Amino acid sequence: MTESYSQLEKHFSRLHHLEHALTFLQWDQQVMMPPGGNQARSESLAELSALYHEYLTAPRIGDLLDQAQDEERQPDRIRSIIEMRREYQWAVCLPADLVKAKSLAGSTCEHGWRTQRRDNDWKGFLKNFKPVVALAREEAQARQANNPQRFPTPYDAMLDLYCSGDSSSLISDIFSRLKQKLPDLIELVMERQAGRIFPITGSFPVPSQQRLNTELAVRLGFDLKSGRIDESAHPFSTGDQGDHRITSRFRTDDFVDALKATAHETGHAAYESGLPKAWQNLPVGQARNMSIHESQSLLFEKQIFLSKPFLHYFAPVIQEHLEIVRHSDWEQVWLNSIRVEPSYIRVEADELCYPLHVVIRYEIESALINGTMEPDDLPEAWDERMKTYLSLSTAGNFRDGCLQDIHWTDGSFGYFPAYTLGALNSAQIFAAFRRDHSDWRELLGSGQIEIVRDWLEMAIWSKGRLLESQDLMRSATGEGTNPDYFLAYLRERYVDEAY
Amino acid sequence: MTESYSQLEKHFSRLHHLEHALTFLQWDQQVMMPPGGNQARSESLAELSALYHEYLTAPRIGDLLDQAQDEERQPDRIRSIIEMRREYQWAVCLPADLVKAKSLAGSTCEHGWRTQRRDNDWKGFLKNFKPVVALAREEAQARQANNPQRFPTPYDAMLDLYCSGDSSSLISDIFSRLKQKLPDLIELVMERQAGRIFPITGSFPVPSQQRLNTELAVRLGFDLKSGRIDESAHPFSTGDQGDHRITSRFRTDDFVDALKATAHETGHAAYESGLPKAWQNLPVGQARNMSIHESQSLLFEKQIFLSKPFLHYFAPVIQEHLEIVRHSDWEQVWLNSIRVEPSYIRVEADELCYPLHVVIRYEIESALINGTMEPDDLPEAWDERMKTYLSLSTAGNFRDGCLQDIHWTDGSFGYFPAYTLGALNSAQIFAAFRRDHSDWRELLGSGQIEIVRDWLEMAIWSKGRLLESQDLMRSATGEGTNPDYFLAYLRERYVDEAY
Repeated sequence: MTESYSQLEKHFSRLHHLEHALTFLQWDQQVMMPPGGNQARSESLAELSALYHEYLTAPRIGDLLDQAQDEERQPDRIRSIIEMRREYQWAVCLPADLVKAKSLAGSTCEHGWRTQRRDNDWKGFLKNFKPVVALAREEAQARQANNPQRFPTPYDAMLDLYCSGDSSSLISDIFSRLKQKLPDLIELVMERQAGRIFPITGSFPVPSQQRLNTELAVRLGFDLKSGRIDESAHPFSTGDQGDHRITSRFRTDDFVDALKATAHETGHAAYESGLPKAWQNLPVGQARNMSIHESQSLLFEKQIFLSKPFLHYFAPVIQEHLEIVRHSDWEQVWLNSIRVEPSYIRVEADELCYPLHVVIRYEIESALINGTMEPDDLPEAWDERMKTYLSLSTAGNFRDGCLQDIHWTDGSFGYFPAYTLGALNSAQIFAAFRRDHSDWRELLGSGQIEIVRDWLEMAIWSKGRLLESQDLMRSATGEGTNPDYFLAYLRERYVDEAY
Repeated sequence: MTESYSQLEKHFSRLHHLEHALTFLQWDQQVMMPPGGNQARSESLAELSALYHEYLTAPRIGDLLDQAQDEERQPDRIRSIIEMRREYQWAVCLPADLVKAKSLAGSTCEHGWRTQRRDNDWKGFLKNFKPVVALAREEAQARQANNPQRFPTPYDAMLDLYCSGDSSSLISDIFSRLKQKLPDLIELVMERQAGRIFPITGSFPVPSQQRLNTELAVRLGFDLKSGRIDESAHPFSTGDQGDHRITSRFRTDDFVDALKATAHETGHAAYESGLPKAWQNLPVGQARNMSIHESQSLLFEKQIFLSKPFLHYFAPVIQEHLEIVRHSDWEQVWLNSIRVEPSYIRVEADELCYPLHVVIRYEIESALINGTMEPDDLPEAWDERMKTYLSLSTAGNFRDGCLQDIHWTDGSFGYFPAYTLGALNSAQIFAAFRRDHSDWRELLGSGQIEIVRDWLEMAIWSKGRLLESQDLMRSATGEGTNPDYFLAYLRERYVDEAY
C-alpha cells in the first residue's frame, strides 16, 4: 500500500468516526430526545458538522488524492480513491458564502413551509422559495463546472448527489416509457379491482403491532443483536456497521401500513449490513446511491413481503398478534395492500401511481434548476401534469399540490428520481434472482429469506461502491436500468394477480 | 468583556458541544445500543475523546488564560477563568506516555477483574493491579507537583478530581468521628429493629413498576419534556441542559429498590437542571463536584422519598400501580427500607453501614497512593478493618472483600469519599432547609416538593462552580461539612423513627 493511500485511509476513517457520532445523535434526536433537548443538540450537531467539513476539506487531502492516484495500482484502491475524491470535491467545490446562504435560505423556507402548507399559502411560500431556487441554480452550476465532462446539464450535477451514475438522459428515456404505459395500466387495474376489495376494519393495539412488526423484521433477516426497531413520526433507517436502526409508525385503525414500512426499512438495513467489512470506514465501502438503496427497501417491501407466497406464510403470525384479523381473509389483506387509485399525495400513492408523481417532480425540478422554468410557474406546471398523468386537478389546492413535499424547501433538488429508479431496479433485480432460483415461490412461501439475502449480498451489498450505479445493475442483472422489468412485474401482480 | 475572555468562552463552548456528543453517545451505548454496535461506537468515542483532549490542551489556551486572568475584573468571570484553568491544567499536567500507559494498564486490569472477581482470584488480580497502582502514584505525584500549595499529599491531588475542595485532612477528621460513633449506633438500631420488620413479598410486573417510577420522578419534579427515564443494568443519570436522562432497574420480587434508585437519580437530574443557564456551556456553570452531586441525589432519596410524611403521601400511588401492596402496611414498606444489618457488599449496604465501607476504602486508597501501603497488603488491611468496623471477616473471601468494586481497577482513586461526604452534606443541607421551613413535614406530606426544589436551586444549584465546595456548604448551611448533622439525622430516623 502506498504511503499516500495509507494516510488517506486514516483520514477517511476519522471522518467516518465523526459521521458515526452525527448519525446516532440525529437518530436520538428523532426517536428518543425530549423536546427540551433541541437547543443543546442543534449546537452540538452544528459543531460536529463544521468539524466534519473542516476535516474533509483539509488542503492536504487534495494533494494526497493526487499523489495516491498517480502511485496506486491495486484496482480496488483505485476505485476507493475515486470515491474519496468524489466526497472531497463535492465538499470543496462550493464557495463558503454560497453554503452559508443556502443553509439560511433553506432553513427559512422549510420553517415557513410548515405553516404555509397548512394554510395553503402559495404566495407566502413563493417569497421564501425564490432565493432557494436561485441559490440551488448557483450550486448546480458550480457543481457542474467542477466536472463538465460528466455533467451535461447543471441538474445532472445535482442528481449526482443522490443518484450518482444515473444521468438525466437515462432518466428522461425511462420516464417517457412510464408516462406512456402507466395511465392505461392504472385504468385497467382499477376496472379489475372494482367491487372486489373490502376495507379491513378493526382496532389494533400498538403494543401488539410492535411485537408483530419485530417478528416480521426478524423473519426478513433483521438481527436484533445488531440493530433496534423503534417508533418515529416518519419511518426511517440509519446506523453504522453492527448497529442498524429502523423505525416504524403505528395507527390503531390499520396494521398493514406499519408492516409495509417495517419491511421497507428492513430492506434498507439489510443493504447496510451487507456492505463490505474490509472498507467499512471508507467511502468505497458505503452504499452505492439512493437509486440502489431504494431498490433494496422496495425489494423487501414489494417483492418479498407483499408477494402472495410470503403473505400466505406470514398470515398466521399476523393472526397470532392481532385478534381481529382471525375473521378476515388473508387474500383480502393482500388485495387491500395492492389497491390502486390515483390521489393527490405522493407518499400515500400506490405502486402504479407513484412513478407518475415522481415524473411530475422530475420534470419540474430539472426545468427549475436548468433555468427553463421559474418558481412563479410551478403551480400551473403542477396542475397541468397532474391532470395529464393522473386525471386530478390541483388548481388552487397548493396544500395537496406543489406544497406537499419537504424536499425542495431546503434545496434538495435531484432526490425524487431515486424513488422511481429504485422501484425499477427492485423489479429488475428480483427478476434476476428469480432466474437464478426457479423455486423462488417456495422459498418465499416457506420464509427462507436467507436465500434471497445471500443472493443480494453477493450481487449488490458486498460491492459497496466498487461499481458505478449502472455498472452495478449490469453486473447484477445483465443490463442497465430497464423499465420493462418493472412494467412486467406490475402486470404480473396487478393484472394477473399472480404473486 | 475582555477579548481574551471572549475567546475562551467560545473555545470552552466548542468543548462543551463535543462533550454533549460524548455524553449522549455513551448514554446510548449503555441504554439503547445493541451489542453488535460496540466496535464502531468505541472507535467513534475514542476519536471524539482524542479531539476533546486536543482542543482542551491547545497551546494558545494557556496564553489566553494568563491574559484573561491579568485583564478580567468582573468577579464571576474571574471564577470562570479559575475553573477553566482547572480543567486545562488537569489535562496538560500528565505526560502523554503516562496517560497512554495508564489507560492500557487500566483496561487490562478492569477486563481481567470481571472474571477474577467471579473466580475469587486475588493473585491473578494482583499481577494486573500492581502496575495500575504504580502508574496512579506517578499520576498523583504529577498532579500534586502541578499545584503543591493546594495539595499537601499526592492523594489530595487525586481527591481533587472528584471532591475538589474537600481535603484529606478534613475527610480524615470527619471519618474519625464516624468510626467512633457508627458502630455503637448500628448495634443500637439493630436491637430496636429486631423482630419488627417483615419482608414484603410479591411479584411486581416491570411495566407497572415503570409507570410507578415515572409517577414518582414526576412528583419529585422531574420534567418529562426535558428528560427521559429508561432502564439500564446500573441506574445512572446524565444529560445536558434541557435533556436530563435517568435510568432505573427493576426486579419483579422487590419494588422499593427501583423507587429508591429513581428518587436518587431524580436528585442528580434536579441539580443538573438547576445549574445557571447563563454559563451553561462553561466549566463555571457545571456541577460543583461529586460530594455536592451525591448530596443532591441522597437528599431526594433519603431526606424526601424515604421520609415518613412523603412515603405516607406516596403510598396510595404505589397501591394504584402494584396490586399486591394493597394488603401491606405502608409503615412496613418504610421499615423495610430503613433496615440496618452489616454485610459484605458496599452497594447493598444500609445508610449506617455504608460510611464504614467508604472509610475502609479511603484509608486503603490514600495509603496506596501516598506510598505507605503496598498492593500485596490489601487483603489483610481490608479484612482487619472489616472486622473492626463491621464485625465481619473477609479472610480468603476476596470476591466479597477487596475485589468487589470496579473503581480501583482502572485507577480511579479518590472517588469513594464523595459517597459519604455526599451523605453528610445531604443531611446538613436538609437540616438548613428545615430551619427555613418549619412546616417541612406538611410540605413533604402533601407532595409540595417544588418548595424544596426552589430552596435547593437558590442555595446550591444556581451557584454552579462560583464557590469552592466547602464555601458552598457554608453559604448554604452556615458551616463547612460537619458530621454531626448526619449523626443527628441517623438518630432521628433510625432510633427515634421520627421521620
